[in-house]
Amino acid sequence: MIRYPPHLLRLIDVLKKLPGIGSKSAERFAFHLLDWPEEKQIEMAEVIRSVKQHLKNCLVCGALIEKKCVLCTDLSRDQETLCIVATSKDLFAIEETREYRGLYHVLGALFSPIHGKKPQAEVLEGLLKRVEEKQIKEIIIALDSTLEGDATALYIKRELSAFSARVSRLALGLPMGSALDYIDGGTLGRALAGRHTY
Amino acid sequence: MIRYPPHLLRLIDVLKKLPGIGSKSAERFAFHLLDWPEEKQIEMAEVIRSVKQHLKNCLVCGALIEKKCVLCTDLSRDQETLCIVATSKDLFAIEETREYRGLYHVLGALFSPIHGKKPQAEVLEGLLKRVEEKQIKEIIIALDSTLEGDATALYIKRELSAFSARVSRLALGLPMGSALDYIDGGTLGRALAGRHTY
Repeated sequence: MIRYPPHLLRLIDVLKKLPGIGSKSAERFAFHLLDWPEEKQIEMAEVIRSVKQHLKNCLVCGALIEKKCVLCTDLSRDQETLCIVATSKDLFAIEETREYRGLYHVLGALFSPIHGKKPQAEVLEGLLKRVEEKQIKEIIIALDSTLEGDATALYIKRELSAFSARVSRLALGLPMGSALDYIDGGTLGRALAGRHTY
Repeated sequence: MIRYPPHLLRLIDVLKKLPGIGSKSAERFAFHLLDWPEEKQIEMAEVIRSVKQHLKNCLVCGALIEKKCVLCTDLSRDQETLCIVATSKDLFAIEETREYRGLYHVLGALFSPIHGKKPQAEVLEGLLKRVEEKQIKEIIIALDSTLEGDATALYIKRELSAFSARVSRLALGLPMGSALDYIDGGTLGRALAGRHTY
């Protein structure tokens, strides 16, 4: 029995590192990649190789940026409202809604007491310093509605209690287009508690 | 509203070229990749960049090889039996079964009359020349049981009719572990027609 050539195995191995990709999918990717013209392979390699050269995190707000931060330098944005998100991906998702025009603060990750991921001192310090200096009036905690999201939100709320800013969290309720009999009891309970006049 | 930085868009774009990967998955891959240490990114880039340098197709049998073809040079393999497959991936899948010890011939792709993909003259010539020179006694057509696979198999069978070699095709029937009431009628019909004494 002959097996895959070594370089093909290496290719499958690196592709398997992508999230949610197991051996079978990685093999499919690899054989697909093999059929590409060389310039397409080189282009992909070049884009991946130069990620760290092109993309970095803003030292002020933590957002993913290429050169200068378009969020921190945009003075037309509401400078007194701060939205706290876990990752830059979440930031872009909120921007996509076009419902928010304030500033952001990217934590980098959620805290997870169970997995021993504690809040990093410098992340919190940066946040508190910014709230103080900018005299932020409203803080929106836009974190996942998961165990880690709840723990992180609670922790941040406590840290922010020294400030007079109004702190809020994203509403919990039915996702749009959802059927009631498919919704879990927890969500339904929160949607009920948060009902609004109609 | 701010959007993804240009390099991130480029990264998402190249990842979207992987088979079965749409925008959402490519975004997930990209943000995952961003979190990798630089050496892991560079390793992935290097492996992809050097695919064509390391891997090529054997000029005789068409199998994917790194330096010399381990199939064509292995004289312990049955030199009178030839298995025709569409791709190297299929070849490795057959090797995995450990049920076959003969030679292979990789077509590169299935012919698809509907999509105008006609058999390439050099591929067919290579096959016919090999069958003649090697004095092949048995030919196994191991192609997909799809429309394209059937068309290709039929075409090849006709071309091979000039030789005395016995030509066979893979059995059609129930996949292992399958429940009868989940099997489509076509498969069941073929399984019935191909029933064997038990």
